[in-house]
Amino acid sequence: MANNAVDYEIFEAGDLELKSGETLRGARLAYKTHGNLNANKDNVVVFPTFFGGKHTQNEGVIGEGRALDPNKYFIIVPNMFGNSVSSSPSNAMPPYNRGRFPSVSLYDNVSCQHRLVTEVFGIGKIALVTGWSMGAQQTFQWGSLFPDMVERIVPVCGSAKTSRHNFVFLEGVKAAITADDAWAGGSYEKPPLKGLKAMGRVYAGWAVSQAFYREEIYLDLGYPSLEDYLVDFWEARRISADANDLLSMIWTWQNADISDNHLHNGDFSKALGAIKAKAIVMPGRTDLYFPPEDNEAEVVQMPNAELRPIESIWGHLAGGPGFNPVDSSFVDDALKEILAN
Amino acid sequence: MANNAVDYEIFEAGDLELKSGETLRGARLAYKTHGNLNANKDNVVVFPTFFGGKHTQNEGVIGEGRALDPNKYFIIVPNMFGNSVSSSPSNAMPPYNRGRFPSVSLYDNVSCQHRLVTEVFGIGKIALVTGWSMGAQQTFQWGSLFPDMVERIVPVCGSAKTSRHNFVFLEGVKAAITADDAWAGGSYEKPPLKGLKAMGRVYAGWAVSQAFYREEIYLDLGYPSLEDYLVDFWEARRISADANDLLSMIWTWQNADISDNHLHNGDFSKALGAIKAKAIVMPGRTDLYFPPEDNEAEVVQMPNAELRPIESIWGHLAGGPGFNPVDSSFVDDALKEILAN
Repeated sequence: MANNAVDYEIFEAGDLELKSGETLRGARLAYKTHGNLNANKDNVVVFPTFFGGKHTQNEGVIGEGRALDPNKYFIIVPNMFGNSVSSSPSNAMPPYNRGRFPSVSLYDNVSCQHRLVTEVFGIGKIALVTGWSMGAQQTFQWGSLFPDMVERIVPVCGSAKTSRHNFVFLEGVKAAITADDAWAGGSYEKPPLKGLKAMGRVYAGWAVSQAFYREEIYLDLGYPSLEDYLVDFWEARRISADANDLLSMIWTWQNADISDNHLHNGDFSKALGAIKAKAIVMPGRTDLYFPPEDNEAEVVQMPNAELRPIESIWGHLAGGPGFNPVDSSFVDDALKEILAN
Repeated sequence: MANNAVDYEIFEAGDLELKSGETLRGARLAYKTHGNLNANKDNVVVFPTFFGGKHTQNEGVIGEGRALDPNKYFIIVPNMFGNSVSSSPSNAMPPYNRGRFPSVSLYDNVSCQHRLVTEVFGIGKIALVTGWSMGAQQTFQWGSLFPDMVERIVPVCGSAKTSRHNFVFLEGVKAAITADDAWAGGSYEKPPLKGLKAMGRVYAGWAVSQAFYREEIYLDLGYPSLEDYLVDFWEARRISADANDLLSMIWTWQNADISDNHLHNGDFSKALGAIKAKAIVMPGRTDLYFPPEDNEAEVVQMPNAELRPIESIWGHLAGGPGFNPVDSSFVDDALKEILAN
């Protein structure tokens, strides 16, 4: 269904029975495509969104001359549930909105994305799935869930399963939002701004590395001071979001695990072993919550995977689409390389 | 002045003019001593406390057969201002208590500790200053401020100056506490429990390493689950503290810099170069907010210092006095070694 008022399309997925046992009623998967599907339907790239990111925020690395060139590829960017564009606490119909929005897993997300790809476009093979952060987690999910369909994966700064430490980091993020009385269990009339700002400050220490601050990279980015960076980058990006949407995506993140489904029943090695796709797995060397060690342990259990860390002091943001030119170029080169093979 | 109701003594320091320009009125420095001062007064160890720690929490590594053996040494444990035992927001006299407690630097702390050592005990030489975390920061401060008096220092998991990243980590901690309306700008009637619990969850991800959680060390410690560890260790230790006291110590921590005084006027290299003491500087290999790199940069500017990282997955807690036997033993060996020379 085309939606002329906005820059994306909607796949009306109906009522989704979720892995959590809950139901996502009238699920709407928002997506944007770039380029054209060729006659053989063999030029497909799926590029899922990251935590708090919308399809527009993936566009910085799509373009002529880049790996994700719309002249060559048909690039589908599906918005993750909870990201305020696809079905989310903030846009769902009452009474299953806001704090009552159901718990949606990445298995649910990718299963629905698979329906979009097959039912709407009749696609049988995907040349590449790639994404950053939770987008990388969806990338792993695609590779494990649909091994005969996905030919290549490049997960960037994300793991196939959320580690315990990553889970704990997110406990702190959640606690910061919900410490604000204005959150009111999700039934706020006005946004819980104190909580969202607190979340921004908590996040600021995690998302980039110690060296990023030591070398004052935020000054190079044009922020006149550390405090300006904390306010204008970190607080601003959180207060512009909906608290329940953020909490919904955090649930999804905390529970990410490609083995947590009927196919693999929690056997993580089996779920990794099921990935047939050629893979380049790209952690950020200084990523504090998706550290390289998590990917190292995963890659050795994947039949056709290479570990290729991004040597950067940008921490988790190293792999963010277009966040910094050097690291983005390093990722782009890997995408070009794998697509050429 | 002896205080018979408690296990420590009080040095009544009078009104202290602080580096911040404020005054700490009727300052009370609480301290405990172990062992006896010998006739030559050359068996003195100063062992300052850590963030949130009291003198009692240093006692786990003091004892017969250990480096800090009260049969040999006269060990003075001064409580840091703000720690709820020495002058703190929670125990100061109105109106300069609670949210109005002045900003106290580590320079102020160590200057007052120096008065205790000289005025009360007539001590001219200190064989060793050692401490963990903010105790390590006080250790550096001692070495730089009184180079002719301090013969040896062993700072454990702390830096001579709080790094920008460490500052940002603490911004998140502060924001979590103060996001709770119950905090009320420091004028709470009941403790801001939501904020303190949030602080505990934020802290939990930072204080130990990714590998600590990967290897589920909390199970070895007797916590039946990750959630139990978060609640029984991290939330519990924060809700038992006073929010204003924690915020006071955070100010002290964020502003720690051995060069920020009239002697060195912000010249950090000069302040490090002033340290004559023989030094073993002991970062935790996996410490996330006092990373080894900060100490590496410091040690090369210290005339007589060796870097000796604690190879441990306990993160910042590696060096905590008595937190785990292997790392505590490693630190104890270094203390014995330096005291023997």
